[in-house]
Amino acid sequence: MYLTQTLHRALQQDPRRELTVTGDRVRTVAESIDRVSRLAGGLRELGVGRGDRVGMLSLNSDRYHEYLLAVPWADAVVHPVNTRWSAAEAAYALDESGTEILLVDDTFAPLAGDIRGRCPGLRTLVFCGDGPCPDGAVGYEELIAGSDPIPDARRGGDEMFGLFYTGGTTGTPRGVMLSHDSLMLSALGCQASGAFISRDGRLLHVAPMFHLADIAIWTCGLLAGSAHVTLSGFTPEGTLDEIVARGVTDVLLVPTMIQLMVDHPNAASADLSGVRRVLYGTSPISESLLARAVERFSGAGFTQAYGMTELAPVATILEPADHEVPALRRSAGRAAPHAEVRVVGPDDVELPRGTVGEIVVRGDNVMLGYWQREQETETALRGGWMHTGDGGYMDENGYVFVVDRMKDMIISGGENVYSVEVENVVARHPAVAGCAVIGVPDQRWGERVHAVVVLLPGHELTEAELRDFCREDIAGYKCPRSVEFVDQLPLSGTGKILKRELRRRYWPDGERQVR
Amino acid sequence: MYLTQTLHRALQQDPRRELTVTGDRVRTVAESIDRVSRLAGGLRELGVGRGDRVGMLSLNSDRYHEYLLAVPWADAVVHPVNTRWSAAEAAYALDESGTEILLVDDTFAPLAGDIRGRCPGLRTLVFCGDGPCPDGAVGYEELIAGSDPIPDARRGGDEMFGLFYTGGTTGTPRGVMLSHDSLMLSALGCQASGAFISRDGRLLHVAPMFHLADIAIWTCGLLAGSAHVTLSGFTPEGTLDEIVARGVTDVLLVPTMIQLMVDHPNAASADLSGVRRVLYGTSPISESLLARAVERFSGAGFTQAYGMTELAPVATILEPADHEVPALRRSAGRAAPHAEVRVVGPDDVELPRGTVGEIVVRGDNVMLGYWQREQETETALRGGWMHTGDGGYMDENGYVFVVDRMKDMIISGGENVYSVEVENVVARHPAVAGCAVIGVPDQRWGERVHAVVVLLPGHELTEAELRDFCREDIAGYKCPRSVEFVDQLPLSGTGKILKRELRRRYWPDGERQVR
Repeated sequence: MYLTQTLHRALQQDPRRELTVTGDRVRTVAESIDRVSRLAGGLRELGVGRGDRVGMLSLNSDRYHEYLLAVPWADAVVHPVNTRWSAAEAAYALDESGTEILLVDDTFAPLAGDIRGRCPGLRTLVFCGDGPCPDGAVGYEELIAGSDPIPDARRGGDEMFGLFYTGGTTGTPRGVMLSHDSLMLSALGCQASGAFISRDGRLLHVAPMFHLADIAIWTCGLLAGSAHVTLSGFTPEGTLDEIVARGVTDVLLVPTMIQLMVDHPNAASADLSGVRRVLYGTSPISESLLARAVERFSGAGFTQAYGMTELAPVATILEPADHEVPALRRSAGRAAPHAEVRVVGPDDVELPRGTVGEIVVRGDNVMLGYWQREQETETALRGGWMHTGDGGYMDENGYVFVVDRMKDMIISGGENVYSVEVENVVARHPAVAGCAVIGVPDQRWGERVHAVVVLLPGHELTEAELRDFCREDIAGYKCPRSVEFVDQLPLSGTGKILKRELRRRYWPDGERQVR
Repeated sequence: MYLTQTLHRALQQDPRRELTVTGDRVRTVAESIDRVSRLAGGLRELGVGRGDRVGMLSLNSDRYHEYLLAVPWADAVVHPVNTRWSAAEAAYALDESGTEILLVDDTFAPLAGDIRGRCPGLRTLVFCGDGPCPDGAVGYEELIAGSDPIPDARRGGDEMFGLFYTGGTTGTPRGVMLSHDSLMLSALGCQASGAFISRDGRLLHVAPMFHLADIAIWTCGLLAGSAHVTLSGFTPEGTLDEIVARGVTDVLLVPTMIQLMVDHPNAASADLSGVRRVLYGTSPISESLLARAVERFSGAGFTQAYGMTELAPVATILEPADHEVPALRRSAGRAAPHAEVRVVGPDDVELPRGTVGEIVVRGDNVMLGYWQREQETETALRGGWMHTGDGGYMDENGYVFVVDRMKDMIISGGENVYSVEVENVVARHPAVAGCAVIGVPDQRWGERVHAVVVLLPGHELTEAELRDFCREDIAGYKCPRSVEFVDQLPLSGTGKILKRELRRRYWPDGERQVR
C-alpha cells in the first residue's frame, strides 16, 4: 500500500471532486494531482533523491496536503516539524535527521534564519507562504509552475513514509519512522470500525497537520473521499464559523477545543447539525462536557481514539455507541481491528483484567523504529510489542482505561487521590466550563488537592460552593481544599492541559512534578 | 496480520458472544476458541507440521469455521476442496498439493474411499460429520475431546493461509496461494468501504464455504463481530426460513439465489426486514429482479463485489447507493479501497475509458502465486498486475463493466448482439422470473438469438408476446427469434447460469461454444 494510491483512485473515480479547501481556494482532485506531480518534479530538481527527508514547518493549509503527497511521489520521506518548537528544537530534529530541504510558510519564515544558523546541513528553503518570498528561498508556486510533472515513484509498503519527532517536552526528541503500510493499515482499520471519517464528506483540519493525529484522519479522509478543509489555527469562533461556512461533516478536536467551542457565545446560534462525526483524543471527555457537546453537535457521533505516533497512531477506539454508557466515557475504547492491545506487568506478562500495568500494542501499524536509535527501538519494541509507557488497565470487555493521569496522583494526608476522579466531579458543576486538579505543597497534608477552574460565561461560583458540590459525590479528602478561578487553562500544541505549567507556580524547584 | 488475530480480539472483548450457529448448535467465542485450540493440538498429534496442507471436503457447518481457524493455529495451510468436484478432480488437487490429511463430513464420506484410492499420499481422514465415523477415519469430536489446546502459532503476514483450487470447469485446476495479509487486507478494504458486513450482526453462510467468496465475507464477519450462521445447502424456502428463524442481518447470495428466493411463494409472508445487507457477486442483477428484491428485503442495502480467487478476492465494489442509478446496476462497481484496477490492451497499456480490454488489478491483496506453477504465475502477474482474463471497460467515473459476457456475443445476420442486453430486456417482463439468452445455429442467420426463460409461478407468456415486449425496447434483430420455457436454469456451484450446458443442446459437437 502507498499513500499516493489514494490520489490515483480519486482521479480514476472523481477527478472533478473538491479535494482541498483553504479559505476560498478550492482545488479539485485533478488540479491537486497536477500540482503534486509538479511539486515532486520541482523537489527532484532541487536535488531531492530517493529516501531523502524533506521538512515542513507551517501552519495548516492545502499546501501541507500537497507536501505530504508530493514528497513520497518524488520517492522521498516527509519530516513534518512541530510548529510549537523553538528554533533550537526544530534545528535539532532537522540536523539529526539530515533534512536538507525545508518548506516554511509566512508564520515561520522569520524563524528560518535562526534555524539555518543552527543547522548547517539545511541547504534549501522553500517558501510556501502567501507573502513575498524571502531572499535566498525558493518560491513554492514558482517551483510548481516551473517544473514538469514526474511519474509517481510509488514509494510504499515497508518503505518509510515519514519521520515524526516526538517527545519534545520531556527528554530528547526522537524521530519515529513510519512506513506507508503502517499508516494505511491504521487508517483502513479505523475506517473498517465504522466509527471514523464519513464517506464523501468534508473533513476539517484544525488540529495541527504536523501532528500524526491529524495526519491519521487525513489518511482516513483520503480513503473516505473527503474534501480536506484546512484552518491555520484554532479559535472557537473561527472554527464554528468554518464548520458552518464550509459545510464540514467531520472534525478532529481535543476535549479542550470542544469545551471552548460549545461554551462559546456563538455556539448557540451556529448550525452545527451537518457535523456527522466528532473525533477526539489526547484525553477522555468529561460527562458534563459530552452532554453539552452532544446538544450542540446534535447530528454527530463522538469517537475517541487512543494511540501514539509510534502506532501510526491508533490502537484503541471508543465508538459512538460506547459513549452512551456513562462508565465507558472515561475509557479509551477497545483494540481497533488492526491492533492487538494488552496490559502487562514489568515482566511483560499479561495482567488480569482490572490490574494497572503498561499498555503494549502489536500489529503491522507499529513503527519501523526510532531514527538512528537502535537501542531505544529495541527497548520500546521488546518481545514484538510496542511499549507505550502509558499506564492503564483493561476491563472484562476489553475496554482500556488509560490511567497515566493516575500517575498524576495526589498524596494528601497519606491518602491517594486521583486527579481524574476529582476533575470528573468538578466538571459536572453547571457553572464549570473546564478544570484541572493538581497536587500543591501543603504544610499540614504534604500535598493538598487544588482545583484550577474556568467558569462558563456569566456564571459565578465560590470555592465553598464547589467544595460542597464535590462533597456530595466524593470523600472529603478528595475534595479540592483550594480553588483558583482562571480565564483559561494552559494548553499544549495538541490541546492537552499543561499541568506541568500549572504546577510550576507551586513547585518552583521542579521537585515532585509527577508529569 | 493473521486471521486468528480476530479470535483473540473477540475473546478479549466479548467471550460470551455467540460466534457460530449451526441449526440449534450455538457456540460462544470462548467455546469456539477452546475447540479451535484443541483441534489444532489434535492436528499436530496427527503429524501436521509447519506449512502442511490440510484439506476439507464438507458442506457448510460450524466445523468449517473451526477448521479454517484451527489449521493456521497449528501453523498449517487450509485447502478447502470444491464440493462440486468428482472424486477424480478432488484427488487431483489433493495429490498435486501434497495434502496428507482430509476432513470429510457425512455427505462426502462415501467419496473418501474413491479419493483415497486415487491419491496415495492422503494418509489420514478425519470424519467431521454427525453420523457414525467410518472405519479407518479419525473422529472430529474425539480428536477435539482427546487433545490438549496448543498456543496459537500466529501463522500470518506473508505466510500462506490457504490453497484454493480454481478453474475446475475449464482446463486444469490450479492452486491459488493466498497469504493472511492478502485476505485480511481485502476484508479490511471491504469493511472500510462501509458497504459490506454490518457490525455485531448475524451473517448467513449459505453459499459454499469452500469458495473464496464466502471465506471473504467470513473474514469480514470476523472483523465485524458477526455471529456466523451456517446452512448446509441452498433451497429458497430453507434459506428464507433460516433468515427469519436466526435473525440473519447479512447474507451473501448470487443473483440466481436471490431470484429463487424473492419469487418463492413463501417470500411474501416471510419477515425479511431484519436483513441489513445483501451481498451478491458472479453476475450483475437485472433491474427487474433488483426491484423485486428491494421490495422483499425492504431494510437491506444491496452490494455487489467483483473479483476472483487470485485477488483474495475483492477488486471492485458496487455500493448500495450505486444501485439507485439504473445505468450503474450493470456495473461491477469501482476499485475497492485496497485495490488498483485498470483496463488494458494486449500490450498492457491502459486503454481510454469506454474501451473494452482486459481488467487488471494490483495491490497487496493479490495472490502469492499458483502452487508449483511458476510460469503461469509469472504470466498472470506480469508487470506487477494480476491479469484477470476478464474483459471489461471503465466509465468516466471509474465504474467497471465486466463484459466477459459480451464474449458471449451472438452474431446474427452479420449483426453483433450482446446477450446481456437482451437478457436485461427479457428480465423486465412481469411474467419472467429468470432467463438466459444464447446464440443457436440457424440456417438463415448463421446464429439466431434464443431465449431460455423461467416464468414466475402462476404466470403465462407466449413466444410472440415476449418478442413484442422486447421489440418496444430493442431492435428487431436483437429480439429472441426463438424462446424456450423451462422450470429452472442449470447453475454452477457458485450459482452462475451454465450457458455452456444450454448451448450443448444446440451445438452438440462443441464448436462455436464461446464460453
